Amino acid sequence: MTASQLDFRSDNVWGASPEILNALSQANDGSAAAYGGDDWTCRLERRLAEIFACDLSVFPVGTGSAANSLALSVIAPPWGVIYCHKQAHVQVDECGGPEFFTGGAKLLPLEGRRGKLDSEELERAIFGAGAVHHAQPAGLTVAQASECGRVYRPEELRVLSDVCKANKLTFHMDGARFANALVALDATPAETTWKAGIDLLSFGGTKNGCIAGEALVVFNPRLAETLAFRRKRAGQLFSKMRFFSAQLLAYLERNLWCSNARKANTAAAALAQGLVQKGARLAFPVEANEVFARLPPALAKELNERGFLFYDWPAAGPEGYRFVTSFQSDAAAIEAALGSC
Amino acid sequence: MTASQLDFRSDNVWGASPEILNALSQANDGSAAAYGGDDWTCRLERRLAEIFACDLSVFPVGTGSAANSLALSVIAPPWGVIYCHKQAHVQVDECGGPEFFTGGAKLLPLEGRRGKLDSEELERAIFGAGAVHHAQPAGLTVAQASECGRVYRPEELRVLSDVCKANKLTFHMDGARFANALVALDATPAETTWKAGIDLLSFGGTKNGCIAGEALVVFNPRLAETLAFRRKRAGQLFSKMRFFSAQLLAYLERNLWCSNARKANTAAAALAQGLVQKGARLAFPVEANEVFARLPPALAKELNERGFLFYDWPAAGPEGYRFVTSFQSDAAAIEAALGSC
Amino acid sequence: MTASQLDFRSDNVWGASPEILNALSQANDGSAAAYGGDDWTCRLERRLAEIFACDLSVFPVGTGSAANSLALSVIAPPWGVIYCHKQAHVQVDECGGPEFFTGGAKLLPLEGRRGKLDSEELERAIFGAGAVHHAQPAGLTVAQASECGRVYRPEELRVLSDVCKANKLTFHMDGARFANALVALDATPAETTWKAGIDLLSFGGTKNGCIAGEALVVFNPRLAETLAFRRKRAGQLFSKMRFFSAQLLAYLERNLWCSNARKANTAAAALAQGLVQKGARLAFPVEANEVFARLPPALAKELNERGFLFYDWPAAGPEGYRFVTSFQSDAAAIEAALGSC
Amino acid sequence: MTASQLDFRSDNVWGASPEILNALSQANDGSAAAYGGDDWTCRLERRLAEIFACDLSVFPVGTGSAANSLALSVIAPPWGVIYCHKQAHVQVDECGGPEFFTGGAKLLPLEGRRGKLDSEELERAIFGAGAVHHAQPAGLTVAQASECGRVYRPEELRVLSDVCKANKLTFHMDGARFANALVALDATPAETTWKAGIDLLSFGGTKNGCIAGEALVVFNPRLAETLAFRRKRAGQLFSKMRFFSAQLLAYLERNLWCSNARKANTAAAALAQGLVQKGARLAFPVEANEVFARLPPALAKELNERGFLFYDWPAAGPEGYRFVTSFQSDAAAIEAALGSC
Repeated sequence: MTASQLDFRSDNVWGASPEILNALSQANDGSAAAYGGDDWTCRLERRLAEIFACDLSVFPVGTGSAANSLALSVIAPPWGVIYCHKQAHVQVDECGGPEFFTGGAKLLPLEGRRGKLDSEELERAIFGAGAVHHAQPAGLTVAQASECGRVYRPEELRVLSDVCKANKLTFHMDGARFANALVALDATPAETTWKAGIDLLSFGGTKNGCIAGEALVVFNPRLAETLAFRRKRAGQLFSKMRFFSAQLLAYLERNLWCSNARKANTAAAALAQGLVQKGARLAFPVEANEVFARLPPALAKELNERGFLFYDWPAAGPEGYRFVTSFQSDAAAIEAALGSC
Repeated sequence: MTASQLDFRSDNVWGASPEILNALSQANDGSAAAYGGDDWTCRLERRLAEIFACDLSVFPVGTGSAANSLALSVIAPPWGVIYCHKQAHVQVDECGGPEFFTGGAKLLPLEGRRGKLDSEELERAIFGAGAVHHAQPAGLTVAQASECGRVYRPEELRVLSDVCKANKLTFHMDGARFANALVALDATPAETTWKAGIDLLSFGGTKNGCIAGEALVVFNPRLAETLAFRRKRAGQLFSKMRFFSAQLLAYLERNLWCSNARKANTAAAALAQGLVQKGARLAFPVEANEVFARLPPALAKELNERGFLFYDWPAAGPEGYRFVTSFQSDAAAIEAALGSC
Repeated sequence: MTASQLDFRSDNVWGASPEILNALSQANDGSAAAYGGDDWTCRLERRLAEIFACDLSVFPVGTGSAANSLALSVIAPPWGVIYCHKQAHVQVDECGGPEFFTGGAKLLPLEGRRGKLDSEELERAIFGAGAVHHAQPAGLTVAQASECGRVYRPEELRVLSDVCKANKLTFHMDGARFANALVALDATPAETTWKAGIDLLSFGGTKNGCIAGEALVVFNPRLAETLAFRRKRAGQLFSKMRFFSAQLLAYLERNLWCSNARKANTAAAALAQGLVQKGARLAFPVEANEVFARLPPALAKELNERGFLFYDWPAAGPEGYRFVTSFQSDAAAIEAALGSC
Repeated sequence: MTASQLDFRSDNVWGASPEILNALSQANDGSAAAYGGDDWTCRLERRLAEIFACDLSVFPVGTGSAANSLALSVIAPPWGVIYCHKQAHVQVDECGGPEFFTGGAKLLPLEGRRGKLDSEELERAIFGAGAVHHAQPAGLTVAQASECGRVYRPEELRVLSDVCKANKLTFHMDGARFANALVALDATPAETTWKAGIDLLSFGGTKNGCIAGEALVVFNPRLAETLAFRRKRAGQLFSKMRFFSAQLLAYLERNLWCSNARKANTAAAALAQGLVQKGARLAFPVEANEVFARLPPALAKELNERGFLFYDWPAAGPEGYRFVTSFQSDAAAIEAALGSC
């Protein structure tokens, strides 16, 4: 085990699956129409339609932030309100990207005390529809897995979706770790998304083995109408798109996305268990590939000395830390490393 | 020669140089700090500083459009005016990206009748500085090679730069085909850019052999201050940045960028010569890797039938067409194909 | 005659008609619902519906620039193109307001060589509909009277409107000097606007006797849907709206708007005639209340010495100047002043 | 007493002070330079400099929302964060205006449980300075009187200002009811603003007797640099500015602003006392001209039947209501009306 096996700063500190790199080489064949008019992009849309068992539109982009911001730009007018968790990536970690892409929509942060959004808190927050003085309720965005490493069950999503429908909100899912959530559930991609009321999904592959494999997947056709223009003017329409679509095709092939995610989740479970045995307290149940824990100072110090890399995470409470595992993590190696502490 | 050798729709219909793909594999080694905190990105900045023989800041991004729009966002306030050629990519081919990133700056199109900007026309167009009624003169953007396939000599750039300095305009160069221009000149990268008054450069590698290799190179340090935030909120900060920086490092290694560009330029010259022999008239001198020509209808028809792929180009005049060659074009094959017409 | 009778810098250097000030006093009666929920605003909408002989929506705002920018914000998406005269107020005199309100739409300036837009030039400029690379053709805006003091006849507007319809452009009229144009035509308000294809009108009263009397008048109901929100978030929804609506009601009462405009136009005609007799050459036919003329240097000097106030106007050609008359101008006084030169 | 004496929906349902209307007539004299180049505007700046005992810049605009949004646009970049009370007008009642004018800055709502901002809560909320992932701490905005009718004492403002200084936040005051706050304090205008660390102030006169009398007053000269352009492109630069500056001049003359505010505050105190005697519970101490109270249902019903006009106000708690008094309110009449209940 190399020291870097203990790098838990994020899943994106790791590289790419070999299958992804191979796909790039295979896509490097002759000329192909630029800007998405190529076979790979066409096949990607068909493949995702199979996986999600529905018609859909696919917009590959460069980053998860771009997918999220583009998504939010079609669910809210510039004077709209988008409800989100107060720790949501869109609210906290995108440097105002959603406000940029939407032309100034307002993200309204909700407490979501247990690491997930609460439908009753959402209902209480919705305010001012139709009155010209107030920014207008427009959308809801949820992260799957959540910003606290939790996973929404389909029935939980449906309850949120019911509030959306009653208030004419469009429902977006930030799936930067969608595969990690999916393999934690006994549910299909369809059940976890459009069948539970999701209108559009940021489908992320980068954190789980791609170089830059992200796509906005749109289930509600009305929402797709302006996206091609929005993507282009955001500088997110790659000319050699085939190399981005090919990554996602390989990601979905032979279930690479799910096997990668399972490795990460298994490693997170092992890590969580080991940390608890050493005296850590989990801030949230570990359901996907993130561990939020409060560590006794001595344990934090020892882990640091042993080469564990991880971030302080004040949102997890006093002495809170975050550990993220990836498709390259190894449960056995983690157990061994913790065992020797 | 495969049929696709005759694909002249654009240089971006072609794939990547093998060296670029190899670089991706070599960069896929263990964990590395995300978001540009990696060795490859650090080395890229050093390498570009050597090549341009000056201190500079480098911001890799996903597309040339993103590099351009980010560049323009720091040279003009939302109420600024940016002067450009009326056929400029930023004006015509980016779906309003510059207006998006600048928050509404105005691109003022100039005629630039000979396929390049004219300093006297620029001077006449500058208007209203300091008066609150008018959008404020802020910047100039020039494409090297130009939107008409022409190449600015350093002394031409300096004349434009003098107008900029006299009017406090910041000077940007869109270098989507910078390598193609550079190898057409007897000048260094420095002489073609900052020594000629360029404040910041969109440095493009995608059209010339990368998968997605673009960087905003900033010579004027004041302009770099906000770019990290602007890039992030535009969804252009790649988490696995090493795979983008590594492409550009390989692009610059052993002069790949220049050798690729030379192949493309040589092919364009051969194509132009061949077309002229068949009765075409060039709309502009062919100086880099683009040929703008008016074809007799019979010739256009025959080329189509022979499998030549190229676009109608009304801006090149009646019966105008554009052909673009690439690093994978082959002068001999082009001559052979034309010879058999 | 006071010296200030010779103030031709603009029609907005003059104050208000007494009827307008009286209307303010009369509106100052007790409490009234704020933000336009008052009787005056309600009556204004009815009155304008009578005058234009159609259903319409009215949005009073504070300035003509605001009316124009709000209008353009509903005719173009942020990636849209709005065609306009190269000297249009929206292009040249609003410090980028249209770009601000539209979120970055592109104004494409047309030559309009005779002081009006030319439908054939417009047709040639329209470009790129449906193609993701290009900002999308969205709207046309025309000033009535024009930026060169000319007046569009209804049949001229219809020709432009036909181009709009064929290209799905929305058609806006900037009527900052609508009354001056109207009284110059043998046509009704309806014939000059919606019957000629105008979708929405910036209806201006400020230059013609109000303090701040401007309203966006929307003939096409689909365009009104978001305007209430847009106006509010632009800080253009006055709480004590009654005082703005009351101005426009008084402006329309007993035909004050037309009688004021006639005075201004008559004075302009007298001024133009007098200047021509002194050796000036008119840059454009004088049809409303603006005179664009090239003056022999000696004449310009003498007018200055006599207390005439007027602006240099390079767009009117070498030694070009602009004179604007107002509802407070007096043809006889102008003739007398010129006669004594 | 007319029924309308009992209109407590807002202070802006009332008209203008006679002195304000007179000032309009007096300003209607001959020609004057447009767009603020007039004497009235010049005198207004001098008068405000006297009142605030410092150099300052003044930008009259049309509405308080415009003053606020313009202010926020110079204290935060598009990727900035502005901290505010969760009930702040800028957050709740301007339909996203601040996001529009700032180009997408984020308003971060604070609880401010006692009807004012809390410096410790503010400190805890500040986060992420310098890190590219996070919107950047930029400004603080406070309403004086507050959104809950409370008044900040100078020493309270200084504590907030200390947090601002320590974190490089610019400090804005929304003074839509500044006069009402001022007369409630034993402090000078200077002590209540720049001496307490306020960088710029939305100075409101509309709610207290003007037709539309609002100005952005800038104490920190660096912040004024771009405001003239920003105001113009927002359609907030009135051509006949004299009529807006003249209102504010009259407002400040012979202390009209303070005497009007005192009437309103006295009436509010009388109203609050009367309501409490009838069984109401005040949600916040009544310090200016707003009363937030929870009414027993029978009392609410009776007030409605007696012609009292006032709004439900859920933010004041269950069975919460808001009453606003104005310069036209009369304490004796209120007491009489309540006494007869």
